[in-house]
Amino acid sequence: MATTVEKLRVNYKTLEEFKKFKEYGIQELSMLEDLEANIIENDSVSPFFGIYFGDKLVARMSLYERSAKYDQYFDPPQNYLELWKLEVLPNYQQKGYGSKLVEFAKQFGLPIKTNPRVKSQAFWEKMQFENVTYDMDRDLGENPFVWYPEGVKEQKIG
Amino acid sequence: MATTVEKLRVNYKTLEEFKKFKEYGIQELSMLEDLEANIIENDSVSPFFGIYFGDKLVARMSLYERSAKYDQYFDPPQNYLELWKLEVLPNYQQKGYGSKLVEFAKQFGLPIKTNPRVKSQAFWEKMQFENVTYDMDRDLGENPFVWYPEGVKEQKIG
Repeated sequence: MATTVEKLRVNYKTLEEFKKFKEYGIQELSMLEDLEANIIENDSVSPFFGIYFGDKLVARMSLYERSAKYDQYFDPPQNYLELWKLEVLPNYQQKGYGSKLVEFAKQFGLPIKTNPRVKSQAFWEKMQFENVTYDMDRDLGENPFVWYPEGVKEQKIG
Repeated sequence: MATTVEKLRVNYKTLEEFKKFKEYGIQELSMLEDLEANIIENDSVSPFFGIYFGDKLVARMSLYERSAKYDQYFDPPQNYLELWKLEVLPNYQQKGYGSKLVEFAKQFGLPIKTNPRVKSQAFWEKMQFENVTYDMDRDLGENPFVWYPEGVKEQKIG
């Protein structure tokens, strides 16, 4: 079955499906409150992309374009994508859904930064992401992994 | 037995003990490399504090003072502490070591920001930390919890 990556819209159904993901946090709660308070409309755009299996959301990630002026990771400094909350539901893992989402993110051609869970290093390396040189001032407790498109390299610290 | 919080120094023994903690990442690897390459000296200062049970490190956290100019969380903007990698080894949990570390951090009298794992919300609330109002531009995938000392309140966003 062909899988497609879809941009997710904020509505009660999607927010209910988000509860099945481990990394459900204040971002989702905030969207729910905004929807309930009519601060945002039903079906508003969200930073989430997902993959459906039938009508069930089984994988998701968040993507956000950061402006070059905040870029502390890439040389030359440029707009880049922050990727977070990449997660595949337990029964749907090992089927390539995670890779599919990351490949989708890469096709924008921008450098990507993510701060994955410590145990997922092998996955990110398989996706051609690399660890940055750790800098406490910038990274604190993060373990940033980045993807460099052609012609982009690591920004020297300091 | 009285427990005391100690500032941890970077040496091979401490770095070996760090491997027992789940959140062992590039920060620790970077300290190890710097030690091996003689970029830092044995027993250099580190941002880590810990609690020993006998001669075994059983709990730790990292603390780092951020300058007021980076403060996006507190009103009035001021120097604040970032707290990360608070962790107690499995066999030593539920004995108050985590609380002891957080109380230690509070005694500096500065506001504190942390980005805890989603499941630890109850602990942080018990420690009088509060969720901030989520702002995607600032928080992305984080779930920031903050502690306000007397006279400090949440910074309005935007």
